[in-house]
Amino acid sequence: MGDKIIRVNMSSLTTAIEPVPEHWQGLGGRALTSVIVTEEVPPQCDPLGKNNKLVFAPGLLTGTAVVNSGRLSAGFKSPLTGGIKESNAGGSAGQKLVKLGIKALIIEGLPLKDTWYNVHIQKDGAVITEDTEYVGKGNYELFKAIGEKRSSQWGVLAIGPAGEFRMTSANISVKDPDGNIRSHGRGGGGAVMGTKRIKYITIDDAGGPGVTLADPEKFKQQARMFAKGLLDHPITGHGLPTMGTNAMANIVNEAGAFPTKNFRYGQWEEVDKICGETMQEVIVSRSGNPSHGCQKGCIIKCSQIYTDPKGEYVTSGFEYETIQLLGANALLKDLDIIAKCDWVMDDIGIDSIEGSVAISTAMEAGILDWGDGEETYRLLEEEVRIGTPLGRILGNGAGSVGKAYGITRVPTVKNQAIPAYDPRTIRGFGITYAVSTMGADHTAGYAIATNILKIGGFVEPLEDDGQVELSRNLQIATAALDSTGLCLMVAFPVLDVPECFTAIYELINARYGLSLTAEDVTALGKMVLKAEHAFNQKAGLTNAHDRLPEFFDEPLPPHNIGWNYPGDKIDEFWNF
Amino acid sequence: MGDKIIRVNMSSLTTAIEPVPEHWQGLGGRALTSVIVTEEVPPQCDPLGKNNKLVFAPGLLTGTAVVNSGRLSAGFKSPLTGGIKESNAGGSAGQKLVKLGIKALIIEGLPLKDTWYNVHIQKDGAVITEDTEYVGKGNYELFKAIGEKRSSQWGVLAIGPAGEFRMTSANISVKDPDGNIRSHGRGGGGAVMGTKRIKYITIDDAGGPGVTLADPEKFKQQARMFAKGLLDHPITGHGLPTMGTNAMANIVNEAGAFPTKNFRYGQWEEVDKICGETMQEVIVSRSGNPSHGCQKGCIIKCSQIYTDPKGEYVTSGFEYETIQLLGANALLKDLDIIAKCDWVMDDIGIDSIEGSVAISTAMEAGILDWGDGEETYRLLEEEVRIGTPLGRILGNGAGSVGKAYGITRVPTVKNQAIPAYDPRTIRGFGITYAVSTMGADHTAGYAIATNILKIGGFVEPLEDDGQVELSRNLQIATAALDSTGLCLMVAFPVLDVPECFTAIYELINARYGLSLTAEDVTALGKMVLKAEHAFNQKAGLTNAHDRLPEFFDEPLPPHNIGWNYPGDKIDEFWNF
Repeated sequence: MGDKIIRVNMSSLTTAIEPVPEHWQGLGGRALTSVIVTEEVPPQCDPLGKNNKLVFAPGLLTGTAVVNSGRLSAGFKSPLTGGIKESNAGGSAGQKLVKLGIKALIIEGLPLKDTWYNVHIQKDGAVITEDTEYVGKGNYELFKAIGEKRSSQWGVLAIGPAGEFRMTSANISVKDPDGNIRSHGRGGGGAVMGTKRIKYITIDDAGGPGVTLADPEKFKQQARMFAKGLLDHPITGHGLPTMGTNAMANIVNEAGAFPTKNFRYGQWEEVDKICGETMQEVIVSRSGNPSHGCQKGCIIKCSQIYTDPKGEYVTSGFEYETIQLLGANALLKDLDIIAKCDWVMDDIGIDSIEGSVAISTAMEAGILDWGDGEETYRLLEEEVRIGTPLGRILGNGAGSVGKAYGITRVPTVKNQAIPAYDPRTIRGFGITYAVSTMGADHTAGYAIATNILKIGGFVEPLEDDGQVELSRNLQIATAALDSTGLCLMVAFPVLDVPECFTAIYELINARYGLSLTAEDVTALGKMVLKAEHAFNQKAGLTNAHDRLPEFFDEPLPPHNIGWNYPGDKIDEFWNF
Repeated sequence: MGDKIIRVNMSSLTTAIEPVPEHWQGLGGRALTSVIVTEEVPPQCDPLGKNNKLVFAPGLLTGTAVVNSGRLSAGFKSPLTGGIKESNAGGSAGQKLVKLGIKALIIEGLPLKDTWYNVHIQKDGAVITEDTEYVGKGNYELFKAIGEKRSSQWGVLAIGPAGEFRMTSANISVKDPDGNIRSHGRGGGGAVMGTKRIKYITIDDAGGPGVTLADPEKFKQQARMFAKGLLDHPITGHGLPTMGTNAMANIVNEAGAFPTKNFRYGQWEEVDKICGETMQEVIVSRSGNPSHGCQKGCIIKCSQIYTDPKGEYVTSGFEYETIQLLGANALLKDLDIIAKCDWVMDDIGIDSIEGSVAISTAMEAGILDWGDGEETYRLLEEEVRIGTPLGRILGNGAGSVGKAYGITRVPTVKNQAIPAYDPRTIRGFGITYAVSTMGADHTAGYAIATNILKIGGFVEPLEDDGQVELSRNLQIATAALDSTGLCLMVAFPVLDVPECFTAIYELINARYGLSLTAEDVTALGKMVLKAEHAFNQKAGLTNAHDRLPEFFDEPLPPHNIGWNYPGDKIDEFWNF
């Protein structure tokens, strides 16, 4: 068990190793970051000011041998939404923190000096070093340099130029074992790290205490069963490993929930140009890798190495949401240019959902033409990367573009961009987007699972009935899952296969010598959501913020249904 | 009494004349706009969307012969603050609406067509005409053209390019009898008018029913006494007529509340370069006019005609706040360049408080150097006027600049810029800025009157004690005064001279045949504040928004006091 907290104070440039308070000991991942933020960050503070903190916490199972368990959570008050934020990512940083026995890393304060720092974490604690060598550099160059000059084995957490500029779409990038990029994507954690003037954090787990298990035999048995459940399930065993998350493209298009031309239509006749099947063919034909894991122990391998026609690396972690939102929603018909845009967003360090919707919103505002991939790339590379005024507008996300240009067709909730599933046609998502403590976030309660894929039951996607309950159940389960360190992708077998669900708490029991039950998992999820919601309310978010933008009252072809879910029904979400 | 409502529907391009509902009959000005907005605008609507309305209502005494009574209120949901807004202005539009018997003008809906309109109001009602002739033109050119091509006698309400761009600092400009510009300055009413695609509203009062008085003799007697009170008072009778509102410069500097270099200091050694005494000398030496009224019946004449060294017109309505905020707060030391900036802000149609603080915030962000007047002018003229990306950032106000550049030293409350009085040293203003339903607004509860000028009593400006009560009393009185059509400047004698206070309700009684008492005036003010506050709460504003920015905890020289007023004490404001 992680037995220490590393506290880094950027005001005094000091670090400390602290014991884990008793009431934090049973927590990990999102539960721990959200509890720490709730306890230590004043809800009304300026997210870019001295009172915000940036908290990293590996999940309860992170660092163990169970498959797909290496997630790391980042928590902070979001400069994008004004509320609490938890964003978890793969890559190797989380596993290395666990190997060092670190339960959480808490970064607080703001340096007085106008310079930049590296925070290096190793077995004896953390060391802050002034380091301006990589200022202005992109993540790929930074990761490569650290791998070459320091160690390719270290975990790295870094910000690109967007984080340096404190753009609210700035993410925190995580090095994967091959030097590629994963992201704590949403909510502007990179901007918070930028205010603290930390360009990158390195983690050397050499000599760390490693992971001990209270009941190794039980752990092994449960882990084996869990892995089998993943491999046997059609989505985690077949769909995701072959097409990545872009396996969703044809499914969502078929459902009529495929946001097209800034959420004007629910289907796109050009879907073949960008769908998962096409992508897989392209990757295979170019000798790329369609199935690549972002961290040690991943057997789903929903990432990939996307190459250009010459077989040169273009990008990895090329997600459905990015492809869909730049594809159908911005009308880019060329997967290669979308891949280049994905690369540049990773390199600059911006959330590729927020960045993609900022682009479609810019098209709505007349800044560039619909479908103009070259100009999209140029805006990212030549405006956002450099921080020109237009780059700042774009880099601060879709809401920023909408505000700057005075337009109202802006798909955001709590100022965070709505992802690649139209809430009118998969109405469980409408509730998730509206009420999530995170702002519009598909991962907070992935309603398509039940609304369309019929996983964990079925709720008719086009009807209002049952969506609040569905979203509530999913959000509670997700909040718990986000606390375990397990990748959200495991939710498919977990919702479908009873032994995969029980395995989650039995693994935690075997790891820590506990005796948790299914009820404890639900109780954890509820506690997390309620703590986050309470923080948001103190921060000034109300049920007026739990609403979709006005324009969603427009009927969406082909089902021609608008969003007119009554506010008081939405608010029932919180009755638990 | 205004006996009709003009309703203009920009969706259907139709207009209607409606009777005044009974419960609106006793209301005028701010009371009426706020009640109409509260009743007809959904609090959660998008301020730039189809459900917002733009309401104009003359005050209860507007159009009568009593001095300084011609104010017109504009009400709407603010795209700047997200809350309700009332902004009142001089000029002649209000008086002309009253002469036509119009109690309120309500503009609703959004046109479908991508074009622009003129709304012309005359004795038979309103007519909407497509009119793109002046699109992109500044207010001065527009007002001149209307005066020459149509009639110099008409009232005009217009937006400049900023309103066309739906910038949230866009104001609604009002023609004064000489063709100069007054403004419904704050809160982005120009952006709302821009969404409705109305470039300008013209008002021809020829043939209107005019104003009738229930008790002409009483009215005349009260009006005479009221005028004498104004002329006899040192501020309205001497200070304002000679130096305009810039009479405040030396007083506020002396008090140590003169925001300097983005609220870093409370005094400025260069105050002599921009103060009212200097300004008056300059104007007189250049044969300008130091004492000019913005409307018929004004005897305070706090406006002026500021000329260049050759005696050519530069600007008018040159207010202390603009001069102070571009002067000390942005370190511009040249009154002539400040005057040019004031002109260009009026011409583009942006609130000169919001615009000036956007400039000092841009200096804070490193966009231009402190004190660079030429670049300030260029940014306004070449970026804001044209709507470049940087122009959009600036034109959306100080909060927008802060967000775009990720900085935290941004003096706003509810996203509206704090005016030219530091809240740390005149602490009644701290409460007014924090709790006002309007966002940071000195006119909502002009605490310097009592904190420094000892008008209406005295509350020690540097102590916390008594400020909530002071601000509450002032805000209640102001909400009532803003409903009468009387200029806020009359508050000085009204607070000091009992007969000037009683005259206000006696004038209303004589005008309408009522029997209001002092208690009714207070009750009206309370009703207005509570209605506005309820709207804001439904719109999603909470007591978390009733706070000053974090950086005000810094001690302000020379008194070296920071703002650390406890939140729960601030919230006591609403206990009435």
